[in-house]
Amino acid sequence: MSRISYLNGKYVEHNSAMLHIDDRAIQFADSVYEVILFHKNRLIDGVEHWLRLSSSLAKLSMQMPYLATEFNEIAHKLFTLNNIETGSIYIQVTRGVSPRNQLIPKKISQTVIMTVIATTLPQLPDKINKAMIEPDIRWQMCDVKSTGLLIGSLYKQKAVDNGFDDVIMQRNNIITECCFSNLFIVKNNIILTHPTDNFILAGITRATLIKLAAQLSLTTKETKFEYNELINADEVFSTSTTTFVRPIHMIDDSVINHGKNGQITQKLFYAYHEYINK
Amino acid sequence: MSRISYLNGKYVEHNSAMLHIDDRAIQFADSVYEVILFHKNRLIDGVEHWLRLSSSLAKLSMQMPYLATEFNEIAHKLFTLNNIETGSIYIQVTRGVSPRNQLIPKKISQTVIMTVIATTLPQLPDKINKAMIEPDIRWQMCDVKSTGLLIGSLYKQKAVDNGFDDVIMQRNNIITECCFSNLFIVKNNIILTHPTDNFILAGITRATLIKLAAQLSLTTKETKFEYNELINADEVFSTSTTTFVRPIHMIDDSVINHGKNGQITQKLFYAYHEYINK
Repeated sequence: MSRISYLNGKYVEHNSAMLHIDDRAIQFADSVYEVILFHKNRLIDGVEHWLRLSSSLAKLSMQMPYLATEFNEIAHKLFTLNNIETGSIYIQVTRGVSPRNQLIPKKISQTVIMTVIATTLPQLPDKINKAMIEPDIRWQMCDVKSTGLLIGSLYKQKAVDNGFDDVIMQRNNIITECCFSNLFIVKNNIILTHPTDNFILAGITRATLIKLAAQLSLTTKETKFEYNELINADEVFSTSTTTFVRPIHMIDDSVINHGKNGQITQKLFYAYHEYINK
Repeated sequence: MSRISYLNGKYVEHNSAMLHIDDRAIQFADSVYEVILFHKNRLIDGVEHWLRLSSSLAKLSMQMPYLATEFNEIAHKLFTLNNIETGSIYIQVTRGVSPRNQLIPKKISQTVIMTVIATTLPQLPDKINKAMIEPDIRWQMCDVKSTGLLIGSLYKQKAVDNGFDDVIMQRNNIITECCFSNLFIVKNNIILTHPTDNFILAGITRATLIKLAAQLSLTTKETKFEYNELINADEVFSTSTTTFVRPIHMIDDSVINHGKNGQITQKLFYAYHEYINK
């Protein structure tokens, strides 16, 4: 069976899903996206993802092209057409096609792309997960989930090229987040993570984790922290839609928690697994 | 006659020039571009533009897909096919098409897009040209002419929506450049402009202007300056491939040079016109 994707109202062969070269995603990175996990016939935190999509679009003076229910319907149909039980959906909304112009064109039709892939649920890593520190030189609208992702991609590659798994970014001495995930530290049983502002993406898994932590009677503080607090933390982990809760065992050459998965990290990992299996 | 564009080795109808949705320009803004003026059967500063394209690509660990002579040949053919005597060419090179991955894929074919449009040469404005100040919240790789242009586009639109023509950006109290052009000020017959580093694009017109100024026995200093120096300048102008030298007469509510085109600005404007007509 060939892979089917969704493009502007049509279900098409993935290989023949094409955009015009004047699409503003291509020329101006004028587009936003979401990735949502699909498991047990539902989109995990679907409502929250559609709300964030709406928020990203609004910050760029764009509207939601469809109702959340319409997005849901297309998503479910795509997973069915592609015969996927557990997977993820990538949704991209662009401002649309218009002759190249520095000004924002009015009244053009937005482009909507939706693609699905099968995935397996992540497990806790059985080897040391290493992160390196890099300056956070991204733009200052990190709260918008835009497709201007080049720094993240370059950094992720740089990490791998240097024997690391991920990059943790630092701006003005403050630790912000990882390339494509939010970052948490644990110190004296308190969980800390950067507050939501224009310097990080307000992760959906991040928000769910904070709720799950509260249910486990764990305290989370949304507060800024620095490099020294990071490398002296009892536990460090990242969160994202596809990796859930991922312990980080080593940062530059500092070992965290003797290189072992932390107690709280593991608790949250299993709580999240339970959450998506409910 | 229909518009002809170039895409990956083929001359195609512009309306049917399409990229696959998995092109990394679409998903990661993983691409760079150039705009070059074509006049009197030559590309103005063509060599410098190909060198900058090569430099932008190198900073993203990409290679030039073609030799400069091959780029030139395609460019000339496009202007001929589209029957354009004076115009501009837009060249975009992307990393290519690959299943969406945060890591940089190896050994994929780069996408090359080239489109041309007819233009008229710019004149000195006959009305007040106004700029507003906004914080420079772009990434910190502004020396790479990437397609991550969303801030520039949003700011340009914001300017127009607020009765201005352009935005001048300011980062850490330093004036950097405009949305899509470099910025110069003149004070006591000395021309000042931000040095080339990772906070501005090293404009080709900027570099040519500095040479032309020297030929006119004018002194240019590449140095950082602040808001107060900007609004108290004798003259202010911007430079770009398509606008050449553009006087700015008003910044926020400060009037520059009594709202008139400055002497040095005009000299440089005419020198640039002469330069491209040589």
